[in-house]
Amino acid sequence: MSVRMLWLFFVLAVSSLSIHAQAADPLASWNDTAAKKNIITFVEKVASPNSSDFLPANERIAVFDNDGTLWSEQPMYFQLYFALDRIKELAPRHPEWKTQEPFASLLKGDVKAVLAGGKKTLLEIIMASHAGMTTTEFENIVKDWIETARHPKTERLYTEMVFQPMLELLAYLRDNDFKTFIVSGGGIEFMRPWTEKVYGIPPEQVVGSSIVTTFALRNDEPVLVRQAKVNFIDDKEGKPVGINIHIGRQPIAAFGNSDGDLQMIQWTTAGKGIRFGLLVHHTDAEREWAYDRESHIGQLNKALDEAETKGWTVVDMKQDWKVIYPSVK
Amino acid sequence: MSVRMLWLFFVLAVSSLSIHAQAADPLASWNDTAAKKNIITFVEKVASPNSSDFLPANERIAVFDNDGTLWSEQPMYFQLYFALDRIKELAPRHPEWKTQEPFASLLKGDVKAVLAGGKKTLLEIIMASHAGMTTTEFENIVKDWIETARHPKTERLYTEMVFQPMLELLAYLRDNDFKTFIVSGGGIEFMRPWTEKVYGIPPEQVVGSSIVTTFALRNDEPVLVRQAKVNFIDDKEGKPVGINIHIGRQPIAAFGNSDGDLQMIQWTTAGKGIRFGLLVHHTDAEREWAYDRESHIGQLNKALDEAETKGWTVVDMKQDWKVIYPSVK
Repeated sequence: MSVRMLWLFFVLAVSSLSIHAQAADPLASWNDTAAKKNIITFVEKVASPNSSDFLPANERIAVFDNDGTLWSEQPMYFQLYFALDRIKELAPRHPEWKTQEPFASLLKGDVKAVLAGGKKTLLEIIMASHAGMTTTEFENIVKDWIETARHPKTERLYTEMVFQPMLELLAYLRDNDFKTFIVSGGGIEFMRPWTEKVYGIPPEQVVGSSIVTTFALRNDEPVLVRQAKVNFIDDKEGKPVGINIHIGRQPIAAFGNSDGDLQMIQWTTAGKGIRFGLLVHHTDAEREWAYDRESHIGQLNKALDEAETKGWTVVDMKQDWKVIYPSVK
Repeated sequence: MSVRMLWLFFVLAVSSLSIHAQAADPLASWNDTAAKKNIITFVEKVASPNSSDFLPANERIAVFDNDGTLWSEQPMYFQLYFALDRIKELAPRHPEWKTQEPFASLLKGDVKAVLAGGKKTLLEIIMASHAGMTTTEFENIVKDWIETARHPKTERLYTEMVFQPMLELLAYLRDNDFKTFIVSGGGIEFMRPWTEKVYGIPPEQVVGSSIVTTFALRNDEPVLVRQAKVNFIDDKEGKPVGINIHIGRQPIAAFGNSDGDLQMIQWTTAGKGIRFGLLVHHTDAEREWAYDRESHIGQLNKALDEAETKGWTVVDMKQDWKVIYPSVK
């Protein structure tokens, strides 16, 4: 066989591989509606070298909210279930909590009363449950919890309540050389122990809210200790700030589901050149939850209006997604 | 030609390519001393699948200080030259600076008097020169400066005062699937506009000190405005904190040159499994500068002692490096 024939053989082999790869639908759980078409059109414009919107791989930055965008967030943020479980576990060491609010109500099981206390109460619970240990200790606590705790309604592991269509979207973007980031109001160290395994997003690509940590030497061993003090809130106006400090350039695509994501999508889509903004609209009361303008968790009101005027894509969960969650063995 | 022969042909072709690649020395500017050998031994242990110290690519995180480690820092941090140039440029808009210190001394050219003012004075200069504009405006100011300003002694562009042996080390690590990060006391937004081009390190892999930014809509256009308020100081005890917040896992290799890097190297080398710590010791008064225990900039004292007890590698610039800076056309 000549070198030329050998080359031909090689080219044919590679071509047939790539034809095979393209034949499988990378967004198989998405119905063939406008949302899916918009996503594919955007990605092909960015990734095709002959396109006038082509961007080099290093500029293909996509940011995703987590709660309500990559996994469910009802009837309350999953991190709050974690905080409540922690409070119960710590209660024997805190006899004063029997009479001290919000812990007293919480330990009696009256979660509603606690949630009615608003932001200040939530912060008290987060600090009591998330601080006072080293970062390594906290990582292990989160890992243990996420592997065993189950959602009260679905009885699934929380990591089994991620959205299958969004997992496919993350993989599709990465296959087209996008770098995918999480930009969430949730705790950065609550997410990092499991995002790489569940979403394929490594710790260094997770942006979130945080508490202060301080460096110390304990018996000559360096540790970082988690303090009961807010460092950064990665929500609303905080999201573009978090993106700037962690990523350092404007993303070209942003995916969210609530008014907490409004400024992130504004910031992303305001950049020069091709941009993409998408909102997941929770419209499926049967398979997941249906909520928007009036919801206390994941309120979607201003951003829904702005999506229309700015031409952002809105996913109608009920119409656009064939399945919600991955099938569980 | 049979399929088996074709395979053999392919294997031979690939092998000869890899032999060829190995023949070129990836650390050509390093003399064959202990420092170079230590680096290569470490990388081969981490990257060889048969090694007992093998680590998957996602755990191969390497962190580099910038000032004094990747580029020079004498007779003062290069970012200070930038700040001084900015002050001169802004002076016509600030007639009050003619009598107000530290600006008055500075505009008269008395940099020494200004530096003697210590940390508080420096902070005043940084705030006056680095705040009050949008992040995009600041990025353009830095880009213009870094492309034109020249070092008073060498008359090189500042980006031509990076260390050639360290550029080779960065590339060598990345060729072995390491992810390379900067973790510097310098301003995060002062570095990001040029680190990708100069070091091959993208903005999202740059950790540094920062001032507060706030989100605003100006004529419906979202901007981030730089405020005259410190957000985070990424130095000494701050470096492990910065690593934790930005990277979210312990690096396996850390490269520094001063006591400002001590905690970063402690934190990195204290992790389980194979670790690597390295200090660049500035010993070359002829080709660069010689300074260590008594220096006001880049003091290397405690870390030099600890390198000995902990077995970190110390680069003797004069002995270990064939060249300091890249050749300039």
